[in-house]
Amino acid sequence: MIKHTPRTQHAPQTQRTQHTEHTPRIQHAQYTPKRYGAQRTVKNTADKEPIVRFCPLGGFEEVGRNCVFFEYQNEIIVVDVGIQFPEEETPGIDFIIPNVACLEPKKRNIKAIILTHGHYDHIHALPYLIEKLGNPIIYTGLLTKALVEKRFQEFPNLPKLKFQLVKNGDKFKLSEHFNVEFFDLGHTIPDEMGIILDTPIGNVVHFGDFRVERNIKGEAIKTEVFERLGKVDIHSVFLDSTNADVLGTSISEEAVENELEKLFKNAPGRTIITTFASLIDRIAILFKIAERTGKKIALNGRSVKSNVEIAKRLGYIKNPRGLEIPIEEISKYPDNKIVILTTGGQGEPNSGLIRIANGEHRNMRFKSQDNVIFSSSVVPGNERSIQTLQDNISRQVNEIYNYKFLDIHSSGHANKADLTLVMKMLAKTKFFVPANAYYFKRKSCAQTAWSVGIPKTNTPLVDNGQICELTKNDFKLTNERVPVNYVMVDGLGVGDVEEVVLRDRLMLAEEGMVVVIATIDRQTGKLLKNPDIISRGFILLKESKTLLDDIRNKLKNVLIRIPFNQKPDPDYIKGLIRDQIGQLLYIKTKRRPMILPVLIEL
Amino acid sequence: MIKHTPRTQHAPQTQRTQHTEHTPRIQHAQYTPKRYGAQRTVKNTADKEPIVRFCPLGGFEEVGRNCVFFEYQNEIIVVDVGIQFPEEETPGIDFIIPNVACLEPKKRNIKAIILTHGHYDHIHALPYLIEKLGNPIIYTGLLTKALVEKRFQEFPNLPKLKFQLVKNGDKFKLSEHFNVEFFDLGHTIPDEMGIILDTPIGNVVHFGDFRVERNIKGEAIKTEVFERLGKVDIHSVFLDSTNADVLGTSISEEAVENELEKLFKNAPGRTIITTFASLIDRIAILFKIAERTGKKIALNGRSVKSNVEIAKRLGYIKNPRGLEIPIEEISKYPDNKIVILTTGGQGEPNSGLIRIANGEHRNMRFKSQDNVIFSSSVVPGNERSIQTLQDNISRQVNEIYNYKFLDIHSSGHANKADLTLVMKMLAKTKFFVPANAYYFKRKSCAQTAWSVGIPKTNTPLVDNGQICELTKNDFKLTNERVPVNYVMVDGLGVGDVEEVVLRDRLMLAEEGMVVVIATIDRQTGKLLKNPDIISRGFILLKESKTLLDDIRNKLKNVLIRIPFNQKPDPDYIKGLIRDQIGQLLYIKTKRRPMILPVLIEL
Repeated sequence: MIKHTPRTQHAPQTQRTQHTEHTPRIQHAQYTPKRYGAQRTVKNTADKEPIVRFCPLGGFEEVGRNCVFFEYQNEIIVVDVGIQFPEEETPGIDFIIPNVACLEPKKRNIKAIILTHGHYDHIHALPYLIEKLGNPIIYTGLLTKALVEKRFQEFPNLPKLKFQLVKNGDKFKLSEHFNVEFFDLGHTIPDEMGIILDTPIGNVVHFGDFRVERNIKGEAIKTEVFERLGKVDIHSVFLDSTNADVLGTSISEEAVENELEKLFKNAPGRTIITTFASLIDRIAILFKIAERTGKKIALNGRSVKSNVEIAKRLGYIKNPRGLEIPIEEISKYPDNKIVILTTGGQGEPNSGLIRIANGEHRNMRFKSQDNVIFSSSVVPGNERSIQTLQDNISRQVNEIYNYKFLDIHSSGHANKADLTLVMKMLAKTKFFVPANAYYFKRKSCAQTAWSVGIPKTNTPLVDNGQICELTKNDFKLTNERVPVNYVMVDGLGVGDVEEVVLRDRLMLAEEGMVVVIATIDRQTGKLLKNPDIISRGFILLKESKTLLDDIRNKLKNVLIRIPFNQKPDPDYIKGLIRDQIGQLLYIKTKRRPMILPVLIEL
Repeated sequence: MIKHTPRTQHAPQTQRTQHTEHTPRIQHAQYTPKRYGAQRTVKNTADKEPIVRFCPLGGFEEVGRNCVFFEYQNEIIVVDVGIQFPEEETPGIDFIIPNVACLEPKKRNIKAIILTHGHYDHIHALPYLIEKLGNPIIYTGLLTKALVEKRFQEFPNLPKLKFQLVKNGDKFKLSEHFNVEFFDLGHTIPDEMGIILDTPIGNVVHFGDFRVERNIKGEAIKTEVFERLGKVDIHSVFLDSTNADVLGTSISEEAVENELEKLFKNAPGRTIITTFASLIDRIAILFKIAERTGKKIALNGRSVKSNVEIAKRLGYIKNPRGLEIPIEEISKYPDNKIVILTTGGQGEPNSGLIRIANGEHRNMRFKSQDNVIFSSSVVPGNERSIQTLQDNISRQVNEIYNYKFLDIHSSGHANKADLTLVMKMLAKTKFFVPANAYYFKRKSCAQTAWSVGIPKTNTPLVDNGQICELTKNDFKLTNERVPVNYVMVDGLGVGDVEEVVLRDRLMLAEEGMVVVIATIDRQTGKLLKNPDIISRGFILLKESKTLLDDIRNKLKNVLIRIPFNQKPDPDYIKGLIRDQIGQLLYIKTKRRPMILPVLIEL
């Protein structure tokens, strides 16, 4: 820890090349799964060299679902408990949470949960997992705490949370073997905290999500924190790799502010602006600009209202009397005095912006002199819905601005050149661990490290669920794996949507399904009535009389050939029906709907 | 037409401002649909000012499905007959084709189909529509013809096509009132042809898809065609707006070539490169670079093999003896002498690249010294599948290169600055019609025109299906609309997948479905057996015994309350079951699966 005498006495490392003299430390052995925890007592005995075990439960093969833990003997520290948003392969799912099955049996060992900041992909899975994690003390900043508490209001039956509020420079003893120090980092939300975890094998630094702040000239600012860390012996640093594959540096937030101020000033009518509701820093700036340009600001959309409410209460957003007005009152002011901050920049269904665009908003419609500003990036997967939305809006308004044309959005993550800068500054750090993104981006982070002279052996690329053994001079990737398969939240269900259900959903979406119902005499197997056939998502069978007849005839043919006096297996009959009808439909239509045969035996 | 005396004598237009002196020509009236063709005979009588009718049947509210027509009296000219690839909202669909319902009754009037170039979004719908369009003469270039013929091999029962081969400078009389001249344009495929359509109201120019070629310094080259067009009186020009919202100029193909050559030269092992199989120009360059760098080139994937085969036969790709080798023979050469050109750069399932990445390829696996080059852009909607693929590949190879890092792809469409250049050069053109993209991009194209002084009234933004009336000095948007709803191709079916089927597919994908089967006595309404319940894509009901019991009990309760002696309407009973079970499941799970009640009455 800064200013501490390191618990483990590292020899100072001044030359990076010294790494390469060793044999490779990261051993990518063949994957032979072992039961997690086996031999643990042998490995971790006190008389041997201490080993801290590290494992990511999420966030290392995706952007989202961030959750890692550190373990030493019977002490566990968890960092972040976030969600991941659903993907194409998980239709209908609300979101995905980390799999903590390996921690649940040892929940008494969990001494602390540290939350780096208040974004959903770092905190939002807590309500589902807090009991499984033994409800330990949560160490986090003021705004993060408020956002967690807000979230927990939706879960009244959960146990009361225990918080330890932290701020820049705070140090805490978490357990017998773990201490922590918190430091401020720049991201896009107040109270983003990096940590120095003081462990039996040395200092481990986790940056959470971060960016290097830049002034309007593009120069790095607020780099003191990296300077200080550069003087500390660090075993390993975990680096946000979200933008590691983006060239150059991140855009200055000051540049964004200037650009937005120009747009506000020159707007011929109202300014409708959308950004992520979680970018509290940006929203605070929008309030400032609105004040400076003499405009009123109205909020639209639940999440932005809720976040602004919290941030105002805690003083992170300044709202001088009369600046914010209810959206019901916008018509009381001249159009060019109005700013509307709304949700929906990703084209989310039912969001604030879509309701305005579709003419379904209770209080407003677009006007031809409106300007619409998308002060946000495009989340991968949302390209088409955003395009459709912008298409719709551009028919109704004066002008749309997005980050492709103007510097009106800056990401909260360090770009390649920012990472280079930080890596160079952390002169006494051994291992640079690409974190918080999928493999391609993490490899980009590692390549950046290689390019500044850090050897390949010191940039471990860890998979979700892979146990790593950290010793004083080593960061070893083992063959041990803990389960990290998706745990999905869908409605009230947590973990009850399994892969087979998702496969069915995807299959149904492709070609639909056909239910074939044969009501037969249990003894003779004779059809008691004309087979019932229902289909959805296939073709309109009602309009395809011939095909319906074909299916019925095929079914009759199948049933005739079954010797019912020998009590055939219903599953066998169903399989036969499925195959035969499936084949028939493929020949007739070149499609493969899901066939669901039902035998009603009476 | 160039060097022709224009049929209609325009007053030379030297000053753009002269447009603004007129009252607005484009009249956006309220939309009141009229039956297409009504009053046509009155409007088009020969003694009045001639009116050419123009209508896009696709390509004006999407990128794809390009198809427009021009009509004068009983003569119709069709330009392009392309497909659109399926979208998120059209799951399971193979592709979408233009709706030609309004042309079918008048197919005898269709005097020509002009195909600007051989890309799928301009030619691929022909097999489905050629008969509906009356199989007129197809005017097109050599490569386009070959690609159409290749496509038609899959449809052996269609009538023989009639082609008129065209090349740069060719002029044809298409019908009594329409003449055409073809000119070469730069795109990404040989034989891209722009047209000057000589009509009773003046010259109409259609650029198809095009870009402004640039040398390595970024200077525009091959601009003679625009210079020549600048001297011609043009009524209206149809401009490819695909990249109208992309700032700056397009990248020089020469720069791309240089960058790729460097990568080929410096590759430590094999070079695996993927690009669109339709970018024949790029592929020809890859063959050249392979030859220059002393490498062998092997092809992987059906579409690239088929296109290269055609392009080699026609001489568009030079293949000196021994340059191309079968993929089975790559191991006979040193790795750094091997280039593999493969399909799959968009992460398409079962494509060449995915098969290699998944270890399912018959002839090759990735090696750790391989470099993989994505010489293509990301088609919107494919972001995640490409990311997943690159993630997979980056675990196996030395390095991945994509267009984000290096200039290794240049789009085939004019960027904003390119359009500006062209607009300024076309000094004697009245109307600039943004085409070949959705509204947002077309509006960007229009805004570009405004920025060079072309008045708003002279940049008509036409919707798909909107009839426009072109007179000598006017481009009038009328209220008349022809049907342009999606015609979907799915397996063997054309147009039989209707919106309700798609809605069902999307709904099934979200929450799955539950089939509830009640076998009842027709007279008493009593259940003859325990209700059968099947679900897919919901939750695994087998594992939710309580929920199954709840559903059965609810169903029994519903049925008990129905007075069967009064012969109730089965639809009424089904509706009741649907509501009640739906409510039950929502309360228990907060999900809304599709409920399909079946009544089996015996």
